[in-house]
Amino acid sequence: MKFINLDHISYNPLLPEVKEAMIDVINSDFQNPSSQHTPGEEAAIRLEKAREAVSRLINADNPREIIFTSGGTESVNHAVKGVAMANRDKGTHIVTTNIEHNAVIRSLKRLATQGFSVTSLSVDESGRVNPKDIEKAITDETILVSVMHSNNETGTIQPISEIGEITRRRKVIFHTDAVDSVGVVPIDVSTLNADLVSFASNPFYGPTGVGGLYIRRGTKVFPFLDGGVQENNKRAGTENLVGIVGMGKAAELALRDMPDRTRHLEDLKQYLLRELPNYIDEYLVNTNLEHSLPNLLNVSLKYIEGESVMLMLDENHVAVSTKSACATGSLRASHVLLSLGLSHADAQGTLVLSWGMDNTKEDIDQFLAALKDVVETLRAMSPLYNKKN
Amino acid sequence: MKFINLDHISYNPLLPEVKEAMIDVINSDFQNPSSQHTPGEEAAIRLEKAREAVSRLINADNPREIIFTSGGTESVNHAVKGVAMANRDKGTHIVTTNIEHNAVIRSLKRLATQGFSVTSLSVDESGRVNPKDIEKAITDETILVSVMHSNNETGTIQPISEIGEITRRRKVIFHTDAVDSVGVVPIDVSTLNADLVSFASNPFYGPTGVGGLYIRRGTKVFPFLDGGVQENNKRAGTENLVGIVGMGKAAELALRDMPDRTRHLEDLKQYLLRELPNYIDEYLVNTNLEHSLPNLLNVSLKYIEGESVMLMLDENHVAVSTKSACATGSLRASHVLLSLGLSHADAQGTLVLSWGMDNTKEDIDQFLAALKDVVETLRAMSPLYNKKN
Repeated sequence: MKFINLDHISYNPLLPEVKEAMIDVINSDFQNPSSQHTPGEEAAIRLEKAREAVSRLINADNPREIIFTSGGTESVNHAVKGVAMANRDKGTHIVTTNIEHNAVIRSLKRLATQGFSVTSLSVDESGRVNPKDIEKAITDETILVSVMHSNNETGTIQPISEIGEITRRRKVIFHTDAVDSVGVVPIDVSTLNADLVSFASNPFYGPTGVGGLYIRRGTKVFPFLDGGVQENNKRAGTENLVGIVGMGKAAELALRDMPDRTRHLEDLKQYLLRELPNYIDEYLVNTNLEHSLPNLLNVSLKYIEGESVMLMLDENHVAVSTKSACATGSLRASHVLLSLGLSHADAQGTLVLSWGMDNTKEDIDQFLAALKDVVETLRAMSPLYNKKN
Repeated sequence: MKFINLDHISYNPLLPEVKEAMIDVINSDFQNPSSQHTPGEEAAIRLEKAREAVSRLINADNPREIIFTSGGTESVNHAVKGVAMANRDKGTHIVTTNIEHNAVIRSLKRLATQGFSVTSLSVDESGRVNPKDIEKAITDETILVSVMHSNNETGTIQPISEIGEITRRRKVIFHTDAVDSVGVVPIDVSTLNADLVSFASNPFYGPTGVGGLYIRRGTKVFPFLDGGVQENNKRAGTENLVGIVGMGKAAELALRDMPDRTRHLEDLKQYLLRELPNYIDEYLVNTNLEHSLPNLLNVSLKYIEGESVMLMLDENHVAVSTKSACATGSLRASHVLLSLGLSHADAQGTLVLSWGMDNTKEDIDQFLAALKDVVETLRAMSPLYNKKN
């Protein structure tokens, strides 16, 4: 029986053209792109072609503003820690929000043990930070503002350009973690007003374990991986050519197909939103429907645990998640949902539903039918639900 | 015309079985190993199978002592910076040698700007550090000793176990950069006396852009990539499953085939050493022939520039290198060779020759014939050579 994947935020299947490009690299025995002999130069050509494709996807001025990394987490660590360390002489204060991904939160916690101070701002009930709050939080000591582009649990998109206007005026470096946005929604760094943009390949159907960091020319940031002179001396280490070429192909396709993809993904979102009340009641939609990704919806089911729903759906061959896969194993309620003002109980009843180009309305129907049964079964056993009715 | 690859230290071609394992992952659409649904669990099984294979290769007590990284450079950065930051309360002094890879040197330079002090020890003319010098350099403030297992330019192997006996007695954490040793020569962490061992997959015919770090249980080291809870909470970021599975397969084969490989590689080394004087004169062998890798030889050709030799050999379809590919573009003479006591002129005339399982004696013959012509041509134009004769 086919597994219905409504957990695309954890993993997007590779596109056939991406697979083909990766397999071609594997079979071609390209050498080290840093080597100066002919077999090395052939590898370097592939590497730079991928960089150009990624550069076009986000409309960078120059491909040299892109470095390849081992994924979104490395990009974020590089941006946040690299800016902090390189600008320490100017100040030690950093502004962020309460709903960032753990890569940002934990990088900032690490910096806090090294003499940096962090102001973390609340979001409103709709999940967005107010740019005015950012402005107020900036002091003469502030060297970095880090705000995610879209949230990986709710899909809510932040007012990045507006925040960027403020940071630019206040001459503070601005990083946005755009891991779940780049390649999914249009990102144009020429109008985004961010100095650093972290992204990854898998959200646009490229391989996992490879990502990128856009560093606007002139931005003061230390390398994170020290060593060789790869990536214009900004990121040491022999390149993951198989992954990078896959990412380049995925970037090329994402740019070409984004209008079609958006239409398909938005259709599924609207369909899901419309059909959901026909199958279940007493749920909350935690996604800001005005400002959000086309491929994700966060729903809290009252009186039951998301974890149980996920496991029972798995038995019915439907994959969903309850929160970021990166936080799996942690039993705590999502910090993102608590920041939106949800109760612990509601936060625990949350499903993160995310779909892709391979999903159809029939998948949604099948999911909803399974969800209805699972919710009924679990609520029948729920003391909270029974007390209330 | 076939390109003869005598630059295996920069890149080893993937073995057919490794390619097959990687392509299988690409085609299988495994999901995120951190996801708790069935498709995620299948990915997790593959991930842990690879970890077990790597664990067996270095004879670790427990696969959990291995984390996967984006390559040797990340492993080294993780080890060196992670130990420094985690043990800062105990001291800020670090001991190393003058011949380390740039990943270690530059990581230590970074730490030096953050209040750490570094003692960097000379090696003797044969390229080895004296363990007694390590012992003398250790103070009450010393928190880390970092000495490479084998040098990437000379192939010379350091007395790691002896150094480890000292660090263990003095209760100092010991890291060895074994990137060019693991999978090439037997490495057994149960007798190596090192607490952290950095390694990469490509030296044993696995993919580039993936590596590992052995962290002996109980060693105090901070994560380098902060974020999700992957890799037992020691290294955040969605895993490069394609690369990791390739590395696992390569590890399995390296362990199985090491005796055969060593025999073949040593044969080629002895053949090259024996034939070399029949083709050229006035050269130095900078490799310690008693303690070195079976697959590398460092030779300085007097009166000429290695860079020119490399480019002319390239025209003859032979790939060699002049120093670490990671240092390409830097015009400076190798710090490793200067540390051995070579003059700048001799250091500039250096070739790093490295071979693999795909090379034959005929390749060596063809290389030597081309080398003879190139050396004659270049020396005929060399003012230094003409003055001397």
